[in-house]
Amino acid sequence: MSRRPRFAILGTGNSGQAFAADLTLKGYEVHLAELPNFADTLHAIERRGGIEISGDAATGFARPKLLTTDLEAALEGVHILIFGGSAFAHEPWCRAVAPYLRDGQYILFTSNFGALRFRQWQQEWPIRADVTPVEAMSLIYATRAPEPGRVVVIGVKSHLPAAALPATRTPSFLELMKPAFPALVAAENVLFTSLNNLNPIVHPPMVLCNAGRIEATGGQGWNLYQEGATASVTRLMEALDADRRALMQRVGLKSLAFKEAFGVLYRDYGVEKETLEATLRESPIHSDPAFPAPAQLDTRYLTEDISFGLVPWAALARMWQQPTPTLDATIQLASVLVGRNYWDSGLLPEHLGLAGMAPEEVLAWVR
Amino acid sequence: MSRRPRFAILGTGNSGQAFAADLTLKGYEVHLAELPNFADTLHAIERRGGIEISGDAATGFARPKLLTTDLEAALEGVHILIFGGSAFAHEPWCRAVAPYLRDGQYILFTSNFGALRFRQWQQEWPIRADVTPVEAMSLIYATRAPEPGRVVVIGVKSHLPAAALPATRTPSFLELMKPAFPALVAAENVLFTSLNNLNPIVHPPMVLCNAGRIEATGGQGWNLYQEGATASVTRLMEALDADRRALMQRVGLKSLAFKEAFGVLYRDYGVEKETLEATLRESPIHSDPAFPAPAQLDTRYLTEDISFGLVPWAALARMWQQPTPTLDATIQLASVLVGRNYWDSGLLPEHLGLAGMAPEEVLAWVR
Repeated sequence: MSRRPRFAILGTGNSGQAFAADLTLKGYEVHLAELPNFADTLHAIERRGGIEISGDAATGFARPKLLTTDLEAALEGVHILIFGGSAFAHEPWCRAVAPYLRDGQYILFTSNFGALRFRQWQQEWPIRADVTPVEAMSLIYATRAPEPGRVVVIGVKSHLPAAALPATRTPSFLELMKPAFPALVAAENVLFTSLNNLNPIVHPPMVLCNAGRIEATGGQGWNLYQEGATASVTRLMEALDADRRALMQRVGLKSLAFKEAFGVLYRDYGVEKETLEATLRESPIHSDPAFPAPAQLDTRYLTEDISFGLVPWAALARMWQQPTPTLDATIQLASVLVGRNYWDSGLLPEHLGLAGMAPEEVLAWVR
Repeated sequence: MSRRPRFAILGTGNSGQAFAADLTLKGYEVHLAELPNFADTLHAIERRGGIEISGDAATGFARPKLLTTDLEAALEGVHILIFGGSAFAHEPWCRAVAPYLRDGQYILFTSNFGALRFRQWQQEWPIRADVTPVEAMSLIYATRAPEPGRVVVIGVKSHLPAAALPATRTPSFLELMKPAFPALVAAENVLFTSLNNLNPIVHPPMVLCNAGRIEATGGQGWNLYQEGATASVTRLMEALDADRRALMQRVGLKSLAFKEAFGVLYRDYGVEKETLEATLRESPIHSDPAFPAPAQLDTRYLTEDISFGLVPWAALARMWQQPTPTLDATIQLASVLVGRNYWDSGLLPEHLGLAGMAPEEVLAWVR
């Protein structure tokens, strides 16, 4: 495989546009792909002739090599597929690209058990190509797209653990990726990256504990982090985090406390303060006006982070008789507030290929 | 017993002052009592010579017959003791008045299992006098005291169920009380009044779902009902209410849905609207500027309503294998947010003399 990988970016959301523009300006060959039903943004980018990027990743106008809804063409000759969108879209995207996957390709998910789910689909559907799923602990960019073809990167993580499944393939993936993304570091395995995702710790408490204000204001006139991450709200984050860390300990994985992990991810920005409350409320990235509060409750801040974060954590813990009282209570209250049962849309051990497995069996499987 | 009862009002909080002033202006003999350690307000009232009351109950300047910290004098010749303060103070007050209680007296609590606890203390301590505990479903006044000796009544409930323990004594109590408080009506029994308290349904959801805003603003600049009781917050109230009503059904008691009960309690004010959200947000009583949001989380809106409302409900339900998922989740999240375990301060079946009793045994006991 060439030392200079070619990329397919799957999806034209904020992250997809940021990946495509950043990698293109770094000199890589990039294919930006979209599903035909969601091609409006792709067509807008085609009309502009590319993507204007500004902020912390790169500044300039990027013309990706290929903008397409033809997934076969998008994957042709590509070494790394990057999927930056919502975990809800993992499954439809993987179904769509499945016929065109080729031996030796990597597909990068940004947490939410993407790698374990992919391996499960490879068996179920099946997918015959020898593709390696990889998972980063979170998105690399904090980014917003004010209009199609223009993307503003508010922050770039400075230290982002990632692992392949199996983890024995992590070094060869990082060798390909690190020139483009020096912030990537080897994680122990994909269980570590999925159990260390920070979004489910930080987002649901802010939304639940500010539900009245979100609905009364439509998210206008205040910043979710600056005004919403108060002392009691951060106590809820730390209690969720304690449940999560107890689960990681149950599996024999080292864990980083949320407060420290959040600081590490944004190390270059001096985000970390004495208290978690100060860290979140005074963060220059998250108090940026481009980083608005959600306009209603039913957004990815709950829907994605609970279905693909808190629910699978709580479900694995339940399978291993590990109590997670605050995870359970948060899922229940969010379900009531939004009026949907998040257990119905959430990932369960069977969706991860882990049903009935003991912790040590799971560890052996991801190694 | 005289047809014109004499009253001892226990405590000089908002409600105590409202009871004392209202009953005095209605021509009753009132003894207003306070514990020596909390006598500042009482002394301020003494200096003023009485209590100025305005608003919906009465208007005028009331001079109660007796203002005292001498509880023996306060209870002398009294027919009805009224306790309007926090459920946290039930026990210290009952200990303080225990030596001076006399046969034939009634002691009125405003919900929160006051009557069942009193019967339990009568056995434990013991109290020999044949005193009848009575319980109203909630406070009769919505009231604020802007300064000691001046009280503003924002609302008076127009229909307030009350019951004695045993319920066979309810008619004789109401005969004494109804001339002063025509809004009082006979409740089935004290289990009904304690399980129909509305505060634990309405208060904790508004506080938990506006926790960030309460802490970020100190409760200033917005109204908890008008801006805090949004659609999702009222969904949480209705889910708590569903758990509560399932518990009442388990005991064979009829229940009134929170939404309807809230309207009934404030019937004369036209509070009830099409949706619970509209009822609460547009209530002229609760959006009154004198009805402020709490300045921090750790107030009676959580502390009293969870310890003496949600916890005993959930604990009784647990004893009877009745699932209450939203009650349990709310208690857990409130405990985490405030940093205290509400189960430690909350009422359990053994505090109510109900440990190990089946629903039908409890019903027989309160009849």
